[in-house]
Amino acid sequence: MKLKISQIRKTLEKTLKDKGIPPAEAKVIAAEYLEGELQGKPSHGLMAFPSLAEKLGGKPKKVKILKQTHAYVLFDANGNVGASVGKQAADTAIKMARREGVGLALIKNMTTWLRPGTIAQQIAGKGFVGIVANNGGKPMTAPPGGFDPVIGTNPIGIGIPTSKEPILVDMATSTKAWGEVRKAERFGKNLPPNIYFDKQGNFAVKPKDAHSALPAGSYKGFALGLLIEILTGSLLGRLMGAHQMKGDYRTMGRGGFVLVISPGKSTSLDKFKKANTRLVKEIKSSRKTKGIKEILVPGEKAMKTRAKNLKKGYLEIEKKLWEKLSAG
Amino acid sequence: MKLKISQIRKTLEKTLKDKGIPPAEAKVIAAEYLEGELQGKPSHGLMAFPSLAEKLGGKPKKVKILKQTHAYVLFDANGNVGASVGKQAADTAIKMARREGVGLALIKNMTTWLRPGTIAQQIAGKGFVGIVANNGGKPMTAPPGGFDPVIGTNPIGIGIPTSKEPILVDMATSTKAWGEVRKAERFGKNLPPNIYFDKQGNFAVKPKDAHSALPAGSYKGFALGLLIEILTGSLLGRLMGAHQMKGDYRTMGRGGFVLVISPGKSTSLDKFKKANTRLVKEIKSSRKTKGIKEILVPGEKAMKTRAKNLKKGYLEIEKKLWEKLSAG
Repeated sequence: MKLKISQIRKTLEKTLKDKGIPPAEAKVIAAEYLEGELQGKPSHGLMAFPSLAEKLGGKPKKVKILKQTHAYVLFDANGNVGASVGKQAADTAIKMARREGVGLALIKNMTTWLRPGTIAQQIAGKGFVGIVANNGGKPMTAPPGGFDPVIGTNPIGIGIPTSKEPILVDMATSTKAWGEVRKAERFGKNLPPNIYFDKQGNFAVKPKDAHSALPAGSYKGFALGLLIEILTGSLLGRLMGAHQMKGDYRTMGRGGFVLVISPGKSTSLDKFKKANTRLVKEIKSSRKTKGIKEILVPGEKAMKTRAKNLKKGYLEIEKKLWEKLSAG
Repeated sequence: MKLKISQIRKTLEKTLKDKGIPPAEAKVIAAEYLEGELQGKPSHGLMAFPSLAEKLGGKPKKVKILKQTHAYVLFDANGNVGASVGKQAADTAIKMARREGVGLALIKNMTTWLRPGTIAQQIAGKGFVGIVANNGGKPMTAPPGGFDPVIGTNPIGIGIPTSKEPILVDMATSTKAWGEVRKAERFGKNLPPNIYFDKQGNFAVKPKDAHSALPAGSYKGFALGLLIEILTGSLLGRLMGAHQMKGDYRTMGRGGFVLVISPGKSTSLDKFKKANTRLVKEIKSSRKTKGIKEILVPGEKAMKTRAKNLKKGYLEIEKKLWEKLSAG
């Protein structure tokens, strides 16, 4: 069914406020979930909202700063939602980077964080380079050569300013995110082929059989996922791998990593943006392999889809999902 | 031919000293090139040394610090070799991270840097997390969907302490490094299949036909390579992509990125190491897919090969290469 974007936004915000989230934060969190849908990533959009709403309730506790130096800050999110604590962490890291050249914010004890890319996008929008990662939850990614899940899908978001739209990376370090499994369930489809293992180590076809996901680019994506597992795990004194499953992983404190670098310290922001714009142009003008219509840089497709959706002003949502969303 | 490791080391150091490199630096640079060979990575070992030696000569200029804050430092390498300036940058970043929790060193105007992994290894050895990247030189990596080279192979090194050997990543963000092309040339072999494009966009078979390399894991590895192109390019006011070819890319100033994070600020180093050791153990105990004998974590194979070679005390080197190396 067709639904006005403004109406969806209001509905999400109302649910969050009803659950005790302060209005300003409700806005940030609603935007995060809507943004995924606007950018054409339904696996990381509205369908993820009901499971967030389930986890909320009760008076939110205060986010605390546990440690702070000139360029480093350690937050205890105290159970607050990743999207909102992540923004606070990014704002602090940006302030530090403006002065020091670099700012690192680490976060522990968050409730789920949907898309680190949203925060990376905000950082790039302010003229900084943002590298954002979070713990992708319970183990879902298999090691190269194995088929048991040993680390999370551990997503990374990267935001880089250009003179036009920012370069925006928002990707799991597994070949595909676990959201693809939920998307296949949502639309009653089979899994994309040769990406997910079942419990016997064969490739899974049905979403219910997915046991683990292949790491992106084999050991190279696994290496990056492992780094993120550690930066958002043991670095924060958190449990990693199978051990985090001893608690309830859905509500267990997630870890987050927000690194901000200021181009202004080593070059001028204007020069930086222009050089990046030129590089993007060069990349797009590479000759194409057979069957390829256009070479896309990271974030380009998402930004185009977003602009198109905003222009239309509405989104196409399944009736069943909307019933869930509007039930609060 | 069999050559004593000590003899190879002495020979490399002598060549460097003859070219005007001070003894302490010659030691660091020789170790970098020997280390690749010891770790069983001939593409990033001794065969890369003669082309370095060719670039040297004349009195080395002084490395300068252009900017410094509490947690950030910008070096002008002034044409000095990556391996040696990288060590200096890492030492400074470690000092900063010890105090501030994080330290970022950026380097411009280096002469070639063979393996960022060596520096990451040194950082991990001192009890810190190291993320090190450098500009991989002239464009060699094609964008997803294209076959013209648009960015470097842009390697990344990651070092993470455990209670045993560190986790060590040392990888190009292309499917394979360009060193594989040089290795195929060195041993008179064909290229590994379906990795390199020729000038017509078909997969190249002969080393001489290699025009570009596929990015690792398609758009995911390309996204990481693009980030490194920018962090070691436009962030330092350097030319990127095809534009850097306007100069002589072999001697043109490369960019480097060294990020150090202190686990001691957010947890204890001991707890951090133990948790990482446990995760490594879990990863290795995943059930294996067909035909796999052992699951290896990043750096494990390299560290085993290194220990074996050191125990033997000698390396097997082709006569032709040794003639080049010992000619100085």
